[in-house]
Order: sequence, then C-alpha cells, then structure tokens
Amino acid sequence: MIAAGETLRTLRERKPLVHQITNYVVMNETANATLALGALPVMAHAVEEAEEMAGLASALVLNIGTLSERWVDAMLLAGERATARGIPIVLDPVGAGATAYRTETARRLLERLDVTVLRGNAGELATLVGAEAEVRGVESIGASLEPAELARAAARQLGVVASVTGPVDHVSDGERVLAIANGDALLATVTGTGCMSSAITGCFLAAKPQEPLAAAAEALAAFGVAAEDAARSAHGPGTFHAHLYDALYALDPDTLDTRTRIE
Amino acid sequence: MIAAGETLRTLRERKPLVHQITNYVVMNETANATLALGALPVMAHAVEEAEEMAGLASALVLNIGTLSERWVDAMLLAGERATARGIPIVLDPVGAGATAYRTETARRLLERLDVTVLRGNAGELATLVGAEAEVRGVESIGASLEPAELARAAARQLGVVASVTGPVDHVSDGERVLAIANGDALLATVTGTGCMSSAITGCFLAAKPQEPLAAAAEALAAFGVAAEDAARSAHGPGTFHAHLYDALYALDPDTLDTRTRIE
Amino acid sequence: MIAAGETLRTLRERKPLVHQITNYVVMNETANATLALGALPVMAHAVEEAEEMAGLASALVLNIGTLSERWVDAMLLAGERATARGIPIVLDPVGAGATAYRTETARRLLERLDVTVLRGNAGELATLVGAEAEVRGVESIGASLEPAELARAAARQLGVVASVTGPVDHVSDGERVLAIANGDALLATVTGTGCMSSAITGCFLAAKPQEPLAAAAEALAAFGVAAEDAARSAHGPGTFHAHLYDALYALDPDTLDTRTRIE
Repeated sequence: MIAAGETLRTLRERKPLVHQITNYVVMNETANATLALGALPVMAHAVEEAEEMAGLASALVLNIGTLSERWVDAMLLAGERATARGIPIVLDPVGAGATAYRTETARRLLERLDVTVLRGNAGELATLVGAEAEVRGVESIGASLEPAELARAAARQLGVVASVTGPVDHVSDGERVLAIANGDALLATVTGTGCMSSAITGCFLAAKPQEPLAAAAEALAAFGVAAEDAARSAHGPGTFHAHLYDALYALDPDTLDTRTRIE
Repeated sequence: MIAAGETLRTLRERKPLVHQITNYVVMNETANATLALGALPVMAHAVEEAEEMAGLASALVLNIGTLSERWVDAMLLAGERATARGIPIVLDPVGAGATAYRTETARRLLERLDVTVLRGNAGELATLVGAEAEVRGVESIGASLEPAELARAAARQLGVVASVTGPVDHVSDGERVLAIANGDALLATVTGTGCMSSAITGCFLAAKPQEPLAAAAEALAAFGVAAEDAARSAHGPGTFHAHLYDALYALDPDTLDTRTRIE
Repeated sequence: MIAAGETLRTLRERKPLVHQITNYVVMNETANATLALGALPVMAHAVEEAEEMAGLASALVLNIGTLSERWVDAMLLAGERATARGIPIVLDPVGAGATAYRTETARRLLERLDVTVLRGNAGELATLVGAEAEVRGVESIGASLEPAELARAAARQLGVVASVTGPVDHVSDGERVLAIANGDALLATVTGTGCMSSAITGCFLAAKPQEPLAAAAEALAAFGVAAEDAARSAHGPGTFHAHLYDALYALDPDTLDTRTRIE
C-alpha cells in the first residue's frame, strides 16, 4: 500500500544504515541526500570490507557510474552477502548501453545477485531488456518502448521491480505499473540526481522491505516533491542543488501523501 | 573568428558529449559545469571502456589532478582513440612542477597524444617548457616568463594551443596571443575552478573544432563572465560556487559577446 | 596558549601547504574548507608521488573514510616522510569499529607513524583504546567512556593529542583536557563535516606546530564558530553547507577569540 509519509516516518525513527558502492562523481551527493532524508549512508568499496559492511546494513545500493574491476568485485561480494541476508538491493546501471563494459557489468550483477529494484533511465533499461535504445554517455536519448511498457517488460524479464525515471517515472513489478508525476525539470541540469533517486530508493526499501513496489514508488514521489520545493526558490542548477538537500531534510511526513502524484 | 555567443548557441543545440578523465576532487564540479553550460559530460576512466567512450565523444578532457598508473593507462587509450578520430583533446597538467610524477606524466601525455589545448596555470606551463617556475601543491607561485610570452613559447615548443589562466588569461597558437580579462577573484577561493575552465574549454572545442585558438579564448571568456555574474550575488566561496552553475546555465548567447574582454 | 585568532592570522599569512590523503566522498569538501580558511590543500594519493608531496607540505592529513590497499601504502609512504621531517600528522580513523579492516588500518597507521593528532568521534576513539563502543557505518552510536575521559585515555594510551568531536568536543594531550562548546546541530546533517574538522586541524597545526594541543582545540573552535555563522542564514543542510565555506572565509582573526568557547 502506498503510504509515503508513513515510510518516511519509519525511516527517520530507525535511521537505517544504507551501504552504497557508487561512482566517484556523486558519492558526496548521494551520501548527503541519504543523510538529509534521515537515514545513515556508508560508502565502502574495498574488497577487504565490502562483505562485512553489507552484513551491517539494512539496504545495499550498487551504482556503476564509474567502474573498474576491483569495484565490481566488491559489488559482487557485498551483493552476495546482501542476497544471503535478504536485505534489499538497488542496482543503478549507469551508462548501460553506452559501452559494452557497462552493459555487461550490469548484466553480470543482475545474474549473480538478487536485485530488488533496478533503477535507471529509459535507454539503460531498454538496453538491458534487449530493446532498441540510444544512450549517449550516461544520458538516455531514446528507447523503442513506452516507459510504462518498458517498466513492465524489465520487471518480468529480469525478475526485479523496475524503476524507470524520466519526465514521468514508471515503476512496475511485472503486474502493476505505477506512474509518478512529481519532479522538476531542473533535476536534469544537475549531475547525479538519478543516482540520488537510487540512493533514496534504497532508504525507502530499508524502511519498507516487504513492499518493494510501493517503496520504490514512494521514494521517487518523495524525491520529486523535494525537487518541486527546491525549484521554487532556485535561480538555476547550483542553487537548486543546494536547496534540494534543504527540501529533503524538510519533507513533512504528515503532508507528504497529499502531495505525491502516484497513479 | 571570436564569436563566443555563436559557439555557445551551437553547443547548446548539439549538446556534444564531452568525455572527461579527471581527478577525484573535482569530478562532480566539472560534470556540473559541463551540464550547466549545455553539453553532456561523461566520466569514464576504466581501461576496459576508456577507448570505446572516447570513440563516442566530441571532445576529450584529460586532467592529472589525482593520478595513478591505471588512470594514466586509460588516458593514453582514450587519447589515442581521440587522436585517431581527430577530435579535440584538452590536457590539464594539474600540479606539473610540484612532483616529478606529475611533470613526467604531463610530458608523456603531450608526447604520445595530439593535444589540442594545454590549459594550466603559469607555474605548470612554465615547468613544461623548461622555464623556471614555482608550483606549491597545485598552485602556481611564480614563473620566470610573462604569461603572454609563456603562452606563445608553450604553443610553439609543445605544438599546442596554450591556455595560461591567471588574473588575466593568455591563449596562444604560437603566433597570435589573446588576452582574456574576464573573471573574478573569488575563482581562486574554490577548488577546481581551473579544472572547470578546462572542461568548458573542451565543450567549446566540441562546438568549434576547426578554430581551437578562438574556441579556447571564448571558453575562458564565457567562464569569466559567468564568474562575474556569480560574484555579484555571492557572500563568499560557498555561495559563489553554487551561483557559478546558475550563471553558466543563464549565460545568454545574444549578449555574451558584448561582455567578453578578449584582446 | 590558546590564541585562535593569532593562529588563524599566521595561517593566512603563510598559506601552508596541507597534504591530504583522504576519502573520495569528501575530497572536494576538505579541499574547499582548507582553501576557504586560507591554507593551500593538495590531494595526492599515488604511491609514485605521496612521499615527495609530503616532503613539500607543512602538515599531512590522513583519512581512511574510503580505503584500499594502495591508498594505505601511500598513507604509509607519506606518513613516514612526514614523520622523518617532523611535520604534524593528523589521522582521522573514519569508521574504525565498523569493520575489522578499518580498525586494523587505523591501528597500523598509529603504530607506524608519529601521529600528532587523532581526530575522530567517540565510537571510533573508544574502539581504538579498546573500550566498548558502537559504530554504525561511520556514525558513533555510543561509547562506554565519557568523552573527556576518552580523550585523556586515548592520548595516554596512543601517544597522541586526542580530539574527540561530538555535541561538545574534547581535546587532550593525556594531562589537560580542553572542552570546546562551539558548533551547531546542522553539522551532523552534512557528510564530511568531521573530515573537514580534521583538515582544519591540519591547517592550524601547520601554523602552530609546537603546540598541538592548543592548535587542535583552536581548530575545532574556529570551525564551530564558522558553523554557528553558517547556521544563522541556512534553511537546511544544503544551504548550511554552502554557507559554511562563506563563514570559514569570513572568519575574523580580530574577534575570533571572543567567540571561542574553550574550557
């Protein structure tokens, strides 16, 4: 059941530890988004400790935005521990479709790990279901499937909750498809906002692990509401970026559900 | 011909992909500057994909601000592909002159790759032409050549367009020397603004690859104009930094040429 | 003798180079804090240059917030050079107590290097003195010793100036314990503020190397005063973060000592 306010309240009470192995570009940003929301981030990528850290966390977020072999090794170690413990795993396949290495790494992680939510843009998810897609760098230029259909197809084919973000976001477990209309165009002007949405998905999953579809949709709605608040006082990408953390921190569980636009 | 507004307009229409292999400290910053300006950044340093990614990009920016052997390998792979494809390469030799490793790496990249624009501070460029220089960490303390002379000498000796930034910037192709007087003193209070100017140089080159001297000068002028705008509403380095992205995003191609101070 | 204003004035006059080998998450932030305060940061982690860079610096800051073997090797190389030259070393044992790898690495650095100031939270320092502690990720949840007692015990047992930050900070050389009551609750909502306090400790030590106890206390007081200023105009974590650099830059040596609350 969709109840973003309640999940946010739970999250802030429990302060779950969200282990993130993510890219160099956005580490600070996803850690700050996690913290502003009310959870505890920890970034640990060393093969020497990735497994142990995943053993302490309530959710694991894997992001291939900048990758290399040792990092993939650590993702597999942490992911196997998370899978064994049954904690939720979010995978963000940044740039799948842009280079073979990224596409193959995303596939490898999907095969080896019990990924709960796959969060990406249309080009990335279309690539992973074998549909036609154009990905330029880490930006989705186009996909041959409509986003709602893409989310459903990815969920069925890959055995995950698929979360396709874009002007309107679509989340599906293979049966239902939820569309989330919160957000602001300024999100596309700041690097790492997609990665932040994956981190926040991890936070919501940590608070509501039994309902990944609802949690994934709530996470995107909450992030979108924060973006709407941040945009109101912003003068461009830089002030929007700073205000986004203010807005995540100020999200009010009591009014959140009146503002989410999930269908 | 100098026409910064027109180059900016072209850049925003084409949204060129600018592949950056840069340092950990400023990755987020250079990606955000690229995005705010209107181009598409992609950061990819893995030897497994650096070459392929450079094959997709319209310009390549190499920055040695934090380096290690695997990263240098990736820079060479990406750079050789860029050289083969004839796309512009910007090299930012951060800290050349501070340690032998940085000086040698910068030289190695210059020798092996067809660098289009070498963008650095006076100490770094003086080091690379063999003139006396003092570099403290990544800061230029002094150089034995005047910046205009240094730019010309570096261009001739190293076969590049040399772009020497400082209170007044100087860009030369070995014949002409252009001086750019835009900017603000607050730029020196935020880390990575030099690296941002290299990334923006890559963006302008992607939009105007046939005229590297003009593109390099226009890039510094545009960045300087944005800095002037950002400084107007800033209360110090932190707000200046946020406002800088707002200002890059708001740069107006129609008025830009009336504000650039290029001689 | 405590004289934060005088130390800050010295620091700004000399602009000491502070070599930092720190984690990916906060590199930009600690570099910017260093620069805003008035010192020169340099980040260099390659084993090929760590030793040479430490040979040029006035202080060395080591931070294990994200670590791997090559980085630890570089920390040891830089640290041994710093030890040989007698320049101050600050160690920030981020996450000691959370995983065995972090605890062991912190111990290894403490054994091999002449660490001047050990700056961490209560859980991390309690772990390193063998007291009971709970560390969740990189957050201190609890420690069995009172912070003043913990600072004294850590200083004695580990042969360092111990700097334990928290709602009130405590710094000890094993004899005296100084309590610093400056700061703001918003510091806990932004990632890397602990790491920034370590970087700033390095800056103050570079300006006052003969009195590490006083310098460590002054650093935390100055950072706390800046946080108080930043909080005044902030609307949440994002604006607080930006304003923190403004406030560090604006710190006034003439009035600083009237505002520090060191006992």
